Amino acid sequence: MAQDKKQVEQITDMEVDFAKWFTDVCKKAELIDYSSIKGMFIYRPYGYAIWENIQHILDAEFKKTGHENVYLPMLIPESLLQKEKDHVEGFAPECAWVTCGGADKLEERYCIRPTSETLFCEHYANIIHSWRDLPKLYNQWCSVLRWEKTSRPFLRHREFLWQEGHTMHATAEEAVAETEQMLNIYADFMENVLAMPVVKGRKTDKEKFSGAEATYTVECMMHDKKALQGGTSHYFGDGFARAFGITFTGKDNQPHFPHQTSWGVSTRMIGGIIMTHGDNNGLVLPPRVAPIQVVIIPVAQHKPGVLEANAAVMDRLVKAGFRVKMDASEQSPGWKFAEYEMKGVPLRLELGPKDLEKNQCVLVRRDSGEKVFVSLDGIEQTVAGTLDAIHDGLYAKARKNLEENTYPAYSLAEAKAIQEEKGGFIKTMWCGDLECELKMKEEAGMSSRCIPFEQEHLSDVCPICGKPAKHMIYWGVAY
Amino acid sequence: MAQDKKQVEQITDMEVDFAKWFTDVCKKAELIDYSSIKGMFIYRPYGYAIWENIQHILDAEFKKTGHENVYLPMLIPESLLQKEKDHVEGFAPECAWVTCGGADKLEERYCIRPTSETLFCEHYANIIHSWRDLPKLYNQWCSVLRWEKTSRPFLRHREFLWQEGHTMHATAEEAVAETEQMLNIYADFMENVLAMPVVKGRKTDKEKFSGAEATYTVECMMHDKKALQGGTSHYFGDGFARAFGITFTGKDNQPHFPHQTSWGVSTRMIGGIIMTHGDNNGLVLPPRVAPIQVVIIPVAQHKPGVLEANAAVMDRLVKAGFRVKMDASEQSPGWKFAEYEMKGVPLRLELGPKDLEKNQCVLVRRDSGEKVFVSLDGIEQTVAGTLDAIHDGLYAKARKNLEENTYPAYSLAEAKAIQEEKGGFIKTMWCGDLECELKMKEEAGMSSRCIPFEQEHLSDVCPICGKPAKHMIYWGVAY
Repeated sequence: MAQDKKQVEQITDMEVDFAKWFTDVCKKAELIDYSSIKGMFIYRPYGYAIWENIQHILDAEFKKTGHENVYLPMLIPESLLQKEKDHVEGFAPECAWVTCGGADKLEERYCIRPTSETLFCEHYANIIHSWRDLPKLYNQWCSVLRWEKTSRPFLRHREFLWQEGHTMHATAEEAVAETEQMLNIYADFMENVLAMPVVKGRKTDKEKFSGAEATYTVECMMHDKKALQGGTSHYFGDGFARAFGITFTGKDNQPHFPHQTSWGVSTRMIGGIIMTHGDNNGLVLPPRVAPIQVVIIPVAQHKPGVLEANAAVMDRLVKAGFRVKMDASEQSPGWKFAEYEMKGVPLRLELGPKDLEKNQCVLVRRDSGEKVFVSLDGIEQTVAGTLDAIHDGLYAKARKNLEENTYPAYSLAEAKAIQEEKGGFIKTMWCGDLECELKMKEEAGMSSRCIPFEQEHLSDVCPICGKPAKHMIYWGVAY
Repeated sequence: MAQDKKQVEQITDMEVDFAKWFTDVCKKAELIDYSSIKGMFIYRPYGYAIWENIQHILDAEFKKTGHENVYLPMLIPESLLQKEKDHVEGFAPECAWVTCGGADKLEERYCIRPTSETLFCEHYANIIHSWRDLPKLYNQWCSVLRWEKTSRPFLRHREFLWQEGHTMHATAEEAVAETEQMLNIYADFMENVLAMPVVKGRKTDKEKFSGAEATYTVECMMHDKKALQGGTSHYFGDGFARAFGITFTGKDNQPHFPHQTSWGVSTRMIGGIIMTHGDNNGLVLPPRVAPIQVVIIPVAQHKPGVLEANAAVMDRLVKAGFRVKMDASEQSPGWKFAEYEMKGVPLRLELGPKDLEKNQCVLVRRDSGEKVFVSLDGIEQTVAGTLDAIHDGLYAKARKNLEENTYPAYSLAEAKAIQEEKGGFIKTMWCGDLECELKMKEEAGMSSRCIPFEQEHLSDVCPICGKPAKHMIYWGVAY
């Protein structure tokens, strides 16, 4: 029988092969599938539903802070992309180019957007005239293309889903404040919704976005102690405005260049969720974005009254606003347990005839495996409390991972040794020179993650060159 | 002053130049802007917000009927597009082709999806194995590209936003039922939400979707009596499944081909809203998708207590679930009235010191211009009732337009004369032959709109060739 084939298969242990464990989870939890084009993935219903929940929550935050959604074309004429020199240098090498429309060869090549700064600037030049037109606070939900050589589910796609905010302001101060506001929205979202602790900071000039004056970032630590950039927020000054001829008449009746920001997060975050919370039984989803928060599994469902009682509990939980699924299929309880563990459903609720007699049910936490009998009275409050406890537990565990694997180092050799022996984030002082940054990369294999907002004084000098230090900086091996 | 430039400018009267009136409304109501690529438009915040409301309501209907959202790649390898012969003939002439990735020329060309049947089939071949895997009920929200020669805001874009449902079923009956269910969801949505009456029916073989066995459609009549196809639902039989080698093991343990459907609506519907309800003062939005349902305009807002009272009314309406904007800017009331008329806000609420004394406010309907004084007590119920009345009024007016401009004809000459003199839908009997359909197009300039589900018997013979008639059919000039 075909059914027999559908087993919950074992996945590779993360201690054996972390990369294989990761792709196993993506595939077996039915988050993603491969297409016939290398590096272009299919977001399957369960994976896409996580993204929909992320969108829903973030979109509300964006709107609360006055942003409006727009949709701009997906194609950028080559001449438009070239208007800002740093930007085109950064992106042109990984553009996909459209050269034919129907049977006709195009007069000019168009690239599929790798990001939309140039398109927004062209539009802003048309609609910004007076200080009364500012600020413009736009956001776009879309997919972008980057023709990468290597690929990996969620972490590196040739096409991926994201949001890109693009804003224009009358003053530099306002634009900087916007950049900070959006970084904080990302940080709060990642911590309070995805249960992923972050390090907030500024990127070095080497690591900043092509064309930006400053890039701010939230950096996360994965289970294998590697770094994942969770989201970025860029301050552009008036560089693009000058390149695109965007000016406004100020209150002083004089022309001025507006100041610009952009900021984005993508489906990479889902990769981050997997590698922060997952375990050897599969996915572990933070409750606030889980497509299914509670799975209800009837025990001895053929016995009279059992299915009805389970359905009644489901109704109560749905009414209370939870995302609930009841699985009354013919699969064995063991199969079901493994299936929803693989899918990372935060909470399993079991209810059988004996429980019914006692007006109770069983709750099993995905994160800890903890199993408790609880009364059906006030089950809504019990479930709410347990989901919050799971969130808190996941966050605390990830925070512990981050803190226990962040080490100070006082020489390049020491930094290198720690990375090789233990992995994690290494914090050192830094003189600010590109040369030292390159040396750390070359000799210790680490890139700079960020100059954290929360600075510490580890010593007076850069451990790489011995010159006076300007900042404390985080280093790591990144996805 | 820059402010002085921002006037609510006059738009062309629709009786003078309907096409110009339409583009004026799109531009002046700030729904859309042009980009530097011909035929690729920018959906501005106000236009995009209408689409978001459409998405929100339809997505809930799709989910209620068991559909799941997915996201598939935007690129289709040329060899994949070619697998189903009718399909590639229909779409290849209007594909945009990607031929370079980064600096490399690609070994095979990829087209940007004009529609995603081929991609879904490739995916379904990977994930459908047993009758237990069926049905698959997937939907995708995305943009598609069709390299059209001519373009027009909302009606014909080279890139437009839409949803495309793609489903697979064990039996033909189930697939046909799905096609009908989705057509009914579209029809109900258009009538109950967009206030646009529809004619439901089947497309002729000439007008059906490339590769489909049958295409069902909802057809609407615009203000200028031309037809707009509102949404379509296609039944594919097992043609694609055979072409793509998709089989499943049935309960009989034998291999079978599944039966397929697809269905979609797009941002064209926004063009339909404009041309169904708009007038010479601009846009008129049906309340259930209007981004702003009620605009509150304080009168004599400098007087003590006025702004506070207006804000209090706004709070009450927002709490009651309405989409409300208060405009307390320094613009004159006259400017504001014209601005929100242009933007088609269904209801204007004015509240000044004299109203306050009487515990009342003024409500002005956008559709009829009717102005009434109403008590602030129970303003929530009054607004709800008025918005419903506006919806009903818009629908009745559009229904009248449709009915009064649908004419039976009993000869080709008569059909031609009616279309030339009056426009509208012409209903005739039809033998079912392509030749007669082509003759109607050539001689009377009309395409077949649909073979309506609600048939009438006008005569026994096809008025074009005199042979026995098979159906009653609707003809019209279409967008």
